[in-house]
Amino acid sequence: MKADANRERRAVLCRELAALRCGAAVLTRSEDCFYYTGYTGEDAVVLVAARSGKTWLLTDPRYREEAERSARDCEVVMWKGSPASHAGGILRKLRVKSVGITANHMTVQFLSTLQTAAPAVGTPEDVSPLISRQRAVKSAGEIRAMREALACAETSFRTARARWKTGMTEADVKNDLEWEMRRNGASGTAFDTIVASGANASLPHAHAGKRKVAAGKMLLIDFGARLGHCNSDLTRTLWPGDIPPVWKKRYAAVLAAQLAAIAAIGPGVHGADVHRLAVDVFSKTGLAGYFTHGLGHGVGLVVHEDPRLSPSWDKPLAPGHIVTVEPGVYFPGSGGIRTEDMVLVTAKGREVLSSLGKDLDSMVI
Amino acid sequence: MKADANRERRAVLCRELAALRCGAAVLTRSEDCFYYTGYTGEDAVVLVAARSGKTWLLTDPRYREEAERSARDCEVVMWKGSPASHAGGILRKLRVKSVGITANHMTVQFLSTLQTAAPAVGTPEDVSPLISRQRAVKSAGEIRAMREALACAETSFRTARARWKTGMTEADVKNDLEWEMRRNGASGTAFDTIVASGANASLPHAHAGKRKVAAGKMLLIDFGARLGHCNSDLTRTLWPGDIPPVWKKRYAAVLAAQLAAIAAIGPGVHGADVHRLAVDVFSKTGLAGYFTHGLGHGVGLVVHEDPRLSPSWDKPLAPGHIVTVEPGVYFPGSGGIRTEDMVLVTAKGREVLSSLGKDLDSMVI
Repeated sequence: MKADANRERRAVLCRELAALRCGAAVLTRSEDCFYYTGYTGEDAVVLVAARSGKTWLLTDPRYREEAERSARDCEVVMWKGSPASHAGGILRKLRVKSVGITANHMTVQFLSTLQTAAPAVGTPEDVSPLISRQRAVKSAGEIRAMREALACAETSFRTARARWKTGMTEADVKNDLEWEMRRNGASGTAFDTIVASGANASLPHAHAGKRKVAAGKMLLIDFGARLGHCNSDLTRTLWPGDIPPVWKKRYAAVLAAQLAAIAAIGPGVHGADVHRLAVDVFSKTGLAGYFTHGLGHGVGLVVHEDPRLSPSWDKPLAPGHIVTVEPGVYFPGSGGIRTEDMVLVTAKGREVLSSLGKDLDSMVI
Repeated sequence: MKADANRERRAVLCRELAALRCGAAVLTRSEDCFYYTGYTGEDAVVLVAARSGKTWLLTDPRYREEAERSARDCEVVMWKGSPASHAGGILRKLRVKSVGITANHMTVQFLSTLQTAAPAVGTPEDVSPLISRQRAVKSAGEIRAMREALACAETSFRTARARWKTGMTEADVKNDLEWEMRRNGASGTAFDTIVASGANASLPHAHAGKRKVAAGKMLLIDFGARLGHCNSDLTRTLWPGDIPPVWKKRYAAVLAAQLAAIAAIGPGVHGADVHRLAVDVFSKTGLAGYFTHGLGHGVGLVVHEDPRLSPSWDKPLAPGHIVTVEPGVYFPGSGGIRTEDMVLVTAKGREVLSSLGKDLDSMVI
């Protein structure tokens, strides 16, 4: 069943390669290796021959057992020389003249070695856009796995937040939440958890440090669990003690922007238009200048992937896409607020996959 | 003081660039950005002009505050278009004709965009070997920071191991140790902690899973703390309950190989020769075929860096190098043993930086 899914994905890739007149693809990104072969380890290169569909997985002896167990219908090879020169040798034997690569991942050195080993291969074709497009549309099985990664994050947040008190440091809260996610089955975090108190919350990518959770200062938590190779991504901005009135208004604006954007999501809607809707809501309260990043991004085998909800993403959403919707406002020196949920694009509209409360009252701890 | 260290490092880089007739370097790796500028964030590109030493740090608005705070004597710029096209624009204005890049990190796409924006730049020069060489030699300040990252890992291991009991899963042990390291100040782990029980320990890069810690089965733990941007890396193979006689012999061989290798480390000694010494010890007990990876590697801003203790590393060690020494033997289906310490190359020989016990008795839990 599982190997079948990998084979079907490779069949799609092979059709696209043929359309581009590529004889093969050389894939270096570990999540692509997992997607097309089921290989669960690291430090591998996957080579797919477009015509025959034959697939090689090149790795080193540290991963031999794992490769043979997880990449079932591939030829598992321990590379000799280097992964790039070994892959080049296979391309030469296959008489491949045009090869597909992921140009936003393959290094300059890898390509140079590959071309030296397979001189007939000219300028490569960048197949990352088509792989991103394929990976962005989740199957029923993938959606199930994504729900599990999300449930792990939500259950952990609900359990752990009962333990968070003023006087704890940001680092304490981070450590506690990450421990809880692992206890609930996460293989790790989807990304380095952000826990930012007070002024630190004005940095959209703050580091959790020794700053203490304090009454009347927001506690922004951006977190996600990694489970079964899938990632989740959520943000809540909690408030220990009373919420100052100015922040109540800002919180309401963030929530309004998020709800307006979510309501607009559906197949055929462009990512840029969803982003613009959130900006429009902020404009009404004079906050548009404080919303300094894109509204959201696809999530899956990596935490940031296509599609995007951002000004430059003039492409339509499609059923099976899973995106975050995460408006935020940031005030250097005083703090910031962000609220983030995960949304599945369905045939008729959308389904909000996450379920953590977000009305203002439920933010108070 | 800190900015001075970054400036001195850049001065060394500029001299090397001039010797290669490179007008500038474009650095994409986050640890290189930190090393040469002090920048603590992510998603940045650093451009250093060889003649003037002037340095640009390109990032996006999410990291503006952090960049201005941490990269003090650089020109912090929010990139426009893309980091690569913006960097290319600066190269064009500087009339740079040859540029240094880290070819084992810069992507094919980045280079292509850079060259489009700065057409006068021809084939780039790969400066990663010289950067690796520079970063491999640690200053007194860096050695102090490395000792702190190591102390965090060791203190945490000593505290946490008292809690480990049969019946816990590998994942439980991993979660407990990582929590303890973060409680002791680690910003994260140096790498995904390996906790492998019994047969799982035959995979040098095993994933911690639901397998339970069991009496008479080894518990291999390969772990490290990340603290102040420095990494530590240690391995111990613990034994709950009695140790089967065959494994006692194998443990003694691993320890003998490690001690022989450590005793040989010193300035001028080639990494390949240190590796060979360990192989020679294993050969005496017929175990050489079960030692399937390199003996060790440099550690610093990343957990695997130059120099290497491996068959292909025919270069001398030098004072200031910090390397792991980690012989291991692996028996598919039944288990494995590895012992790993960190060693500083000194002017006259070596100093073993780590201090966790490793005689067989102290392995029993």
